[in-house]
Amino acid sequence: MASCDLNSKNPLLLVSCGDQPGLIHAITGVLLGMGLNIVSNQEFVDRESRRFFMRTEFEGAADFARLGAAVRAALPASADVRVQPPARRRVAILVTKEHHCLGDLLLRHAYGELAAEVVAVIGNHAGLRPLAEKFDMPFFHAESANCTREAHEAEVLRLLSHFTIELLVLAKYMRVLSPEFVARWPNRIINIHHSFLPAFAGAKPYHQAFQRGVKVIGATAHFVTAELDRGPIIVQQVIPVAHTHTPQDLAQAGRDVEQMVLSRALRLVLEDRVFLCGNRTIIFD
Amino acid sequence: MASCDLNSKNPLLLVSCGDQPGLIHAITGVLLGMGLNIVSNQEFVDRESRRFFMRTEFEGAADFARLGAAVRAALPASADVRVQPPARRRVAILVTKEHHCLGDLLLRHAYGELAAEVVAVIGNHAGLRPLAEKFDMPFFHAESANCTREAHEAEVLRLLSHFTIELLVLAKYMRVLSPEFVARWPNRIINIHHSFLPAFAGAKPYHQAFQRGVKVIGATAHFVTAELDRGPIIVQQVIPVAHTHTPQDLAQAGRDVEQMVLSRALRLVLEDRVFLCGNRTIIFD
Amino acid sequence: MASCDLNSKNPLLLVSCGDQPGLIHAITGVLLGMGLNIVSNQEFVDRESRRFFMRTEFEGAADFARLGAAVRAALPASADVRVQPPARRRVAILVTKEHHCLGDLLLRHAYGELAAEVVAVIGNHAGLRPLAEKFDMPFFHAESANCTREAHEAEVLRLLSHFTIELLVLAKYMRVLSPEFVARWPNRIINIHHSFLPAFAGAKPYHQAFQRGVKVIGATAHFVTAELDRGPIIVQQVIPVAHTHTPQDLAQAGRDVEQMVLSRALRLVLEDRVFLCGNRTIIFD
Amino acid sequence: MASCDLNSKNPLLLVSCGDQPGLIHAITGVLLGMGLNIVSNQEFVDRESRRFFMRTEFEGAADFARLGAAVRAALPASADVRVQPPARRRVAILVTKEHHCLGDLLLRHAYGELAAEVVAVIGNHAGLRPLAEKFDMPFFHAESANCTREAHEAEVLRLLSHFTIELLVLAKYMRVLSPEFVARWPNRIINIHHSFLPAFAGAKPYHQAFQRGVKVIGATAHFVTAELDRGPIIVQQVIPVAHTHTPQDLAQAGRDVEQMVLSRALRLVLEDRVFLCGNRTIIFD
Repeated sequence: MASCDLNSKNPLLLVSCGDQPGLIHAITGVLLGMGLNIVSNQEFVDRESRRFFMRTEFEGAADFARLGAAVRAALPASADVRVQPPARRRVAILVTKEHHCLGDLLLRHAYGELAAEVVAVIGNHAGLRPLAEKFDMPFFHAESANCTREAHEAEVLRLLSHFTIELLVLAKYMRVLSPEFVARWPNRIINIHHSFLPAFAGAKPYHQAFQRGVKVIGATAHFVTAELDRGPIIVQQVIPVAHTHTPQDLAQAGRDVEQMVLSRALRLVLEDRVFLCGNRTIIFD
Repeated sequence: MASCDLNSKNPLLLVSCGDQPGLIHAITGVLLGMGLNIVSNQEFVDRESRRFFMRTEFEGAADFARLGAAVRAALPASADVRVQPPARRRVAILVTKEHHCLGDLLLRHAYGELAAEVVAVIGNHAGLRPLAEKFDMPFFHAESANCTREAHEAEVLRLLSHFTIELLVLAKYMRVLSPEFVARWPNRIINIHHSFLPAFAGAKPYHQAFQRGVKVIGATAHFVTAELDRGPIIVQQVIPVAHTHTPQDLAQAGRDVEQMVLSRALRLVLEDRVFLCGNRTIIFD
Repeated sequence: MASCDLNSKNPLLLVSCGDQPGLIHAITGVLLGMGLNIVSNQEFVDRESRRFFMRTEFEGAADFARLGAAVRAALPASADVRVQPPARRRVAILVTKEHHCLGDLLLRHAYGELAAEVVAVIGNHAGLRPLAEKFDMPFFHAESANCTREAHEAEVLRLLSHFTIELLVLAKYMRVLSPEFVARWPNRIINIHHSFLPAFAGAKPYHQAFQRGVKVIGATAHFVTAELDRGPIIVQQVIPVAHTHTPQDLAQAGRDVEQMVLSRALRLVLEDRVFLCGNRTIIFD
Repeated sequence: MASCDLNSKNPLLLVSCGDQPGLIHAITGVLLGMGLNIVSNQEFVDRESRRFFMRTEFEGAADFARLGAAVRAALPASADVRVQPPARRRVAILVTKEHHCLGDLLLRHAYGELAAEVVAVIGNHAGLRPLAEKFDMPFFHAESANCTREAHEAEVLRLLSHFTIELLVLAKYMRVLSPEFVARWPNRIINIHHSFLPAFAGAKPYHQAFQRGVKVIGATAHFVTAELDRGPIIVQQVIPVAHTHTPQDLAQAGRDVEQMVLSRALRLVLEDRVFLCGNRTIIFD
């Protein structure tokens, strides 16, 4: 099938560090000195944490290692510097029973809409195997029903170890991951959930939403952290609903907004447009 | 100034009752028998509560009392039947310090965009007096700072008793009303609040939202019930925000969405488009 | 795979006719007389054309032919009356090269989200064959490049004649259908197009939109009529864009909004929520 | 009344010029050399025109004239450089008969939500005089009915000459300005119009929209150029509508979206967030 044209993409310089005068001048000086041309540049200083963020797309023949070293040398020692060539990020998708986010991602992947190479789908139920296989995607069933969380997570990790995964996408994976698991993928796990939390914690959120008579249904994509559903928010969106909608209609609306929000969040992450600032995200869109 | 043309409006028949076969047939039979023509008709049956709702706009020379009696006679004894001639509902607005919702409502009122006669503004602070007076609107200051809630509410009730009020609008009135006060105005008090509840209960909601890094800011208009912020939702809406926005920007976005949502909710109520079904609303828009 | 539960659906009575007093009373009288219970009922009278529309969901053991006849007998001779049992509508999808709408529809179809039986995909290019076949869907290539429109349409009609099609969906089918072709499927062809028309007629609409510096990108789903892009609108929606977006980004945004809008329009049509009133639609959502 | 705190605002450095390597480095070098700290910085390079745009908010005690000169000296001769201290821009508002945009702007102005000093309202009808005067705003009636466009515009210019106006806001001013008039205020006139153009050119746009059965109503704020309704777009937005809405309802929805869009566009311009790139805008939000 068709494929995303990485040749049309430029390399990126990604920097974050404590703010101080002269950062942009120093960084652009390094690029200029190496004959590299800035195509687009976005910076942001968070006033509260006094932290500086910069995403620079550049063109020109660069020795990426040398560029990274030179930028690091020009900045405070604690600076976080990354030079990112155009690349497809290797991604695994974790699922449970619901198909909508997985189907949407596999379709976008198949047509090269994502700068990702999805290498595996892991389900704690086996039901989505046929969908993965339609797209020639390896599906692994890591049972969670008759084992401890430790055993289940060990099996997931064992499966993931066969691949070199850079990003995990929880596409309606309905298990709570242990802090130990999450710690292995810091800010590299993206989750989607119905936006009712904390309003509608617990079971049957769409029945609760129906009972409460809400007029909008939303979804939130966020990074997973040790604290459940409290990780940095990447994308949030809502769609309007009405009293004529049954709980089933609300669930359909929820699925629709979830798949929009998750694919948008994944795209932003894959294009290195998302920086973390404490528990918030800086999005250079 | 200009004024809303009540002559272009038709009378309404408003019915709610337990569902049973033949209700629509019975009601339309009464209208037909009295030579009244249905201009628009909306019904809804809530499957859970098995409750029937109907809003009928009709034209023709009607004896409203006779029509109401005839419809009541055709329905179960417990039916709630109202015949509503085109009218401006008499409204009082309660405020504290924030101007945006009051300003928007007074402007719309002045240009006849609302089928309401706003007769008074009552503030527990005096700061919005000049704004009310710009629009030649009586403003009353019912102090809340140095007295008990009972005393404050007694003063508000005393002021309201001079008017024949049909609806109270809390346009950023920042006091919690007692269940006793609320019970005097069942489903006739409309409140607007920032939609972060229950997510961001407590002080400084926009600072909390900023800390959490939300990507949308919303507002909810609802009827006030004895249980704080749990009354039936009339309108909800959100607008997108970004990391570049300061807490002050979020507050401005919040004000903008609050005034949109409150004026829309008030318009729906004034046009008798809102029915209550338990703790939910049926909106015939 | 999973499948849409038609058993949870009720039959529908669908009526449109010139407005006159007593219509609702007459229709509900027939239902009542046959012991059928109204589950939900929506009517609308278009003031301009004085035309009446009604969509009634009912329950109870009905002889549908007898019900239809009885309702017809109770109404003016010109009334359009249909009794619709719960059913999957038989649908063919026409495509050209773009995959996004087809992929979304096949996915939703596979998981029973649509009350449709998609029976064939016909492309004037062959490129989407692999996508159709992933979902075990017959794909037919009706060449359009080296033949006249008449010949191409004759081939499409020949292919369609093998099936009993109730609805055609143009999921980015980029040919203009002849009035003769359209006349065979009156109000049964749904098209999606980028919403720039009439603003951005002609080639490369996203480059034109980029040049114009638009801040929103939209899409419109409509019924196809003899007059190009002038048929009744079913769904319209937009998403915001910014100066940072390239024409390629605008095109991606366009694809995203197109697939949302088309699947929503199809769902409304499949649930018989769309009535035609001249060149406008009445949507009972 | 309350007032916008200019003390909380920082000065801005605003640059646009043909793109070339080293621009950011050169500009930040000047700031650094003068001991000025960058608070936020946004740049964009338009790939088509190869034009560079930069908006820098800085803090520190600056000699603004010296800063401007130093930046100019560091850039190509054709560069457009402006140093902008925090200031209220002086604004005149032109109106005809419709009140909604004027009312919204006067309210926001009165409460210091805009970094503007509105100094006059000029109407080609006298009807909005009472609204302006409520807010103690000078209102001038520049008749347009019984005179040529030249004479009318001459009168408007005469009135404006009494003030030092930096920005004109056409808040539903329904006259077409001559190219000569527009040329006096290049990119300093902001207009709001119903977004149907070019779809619904001519009279009664909401009746046309109703006839066409649109499902969204929008508005566009743009700079005025010699070519009617073709100037650079600043903000566009839509709100959903339905078949139940009359032309009057559509007009109300249009008013609501117009006032949102115009006040947002004005705010962006007042905060110097809008750059022009040919006929498009770059918005640093």
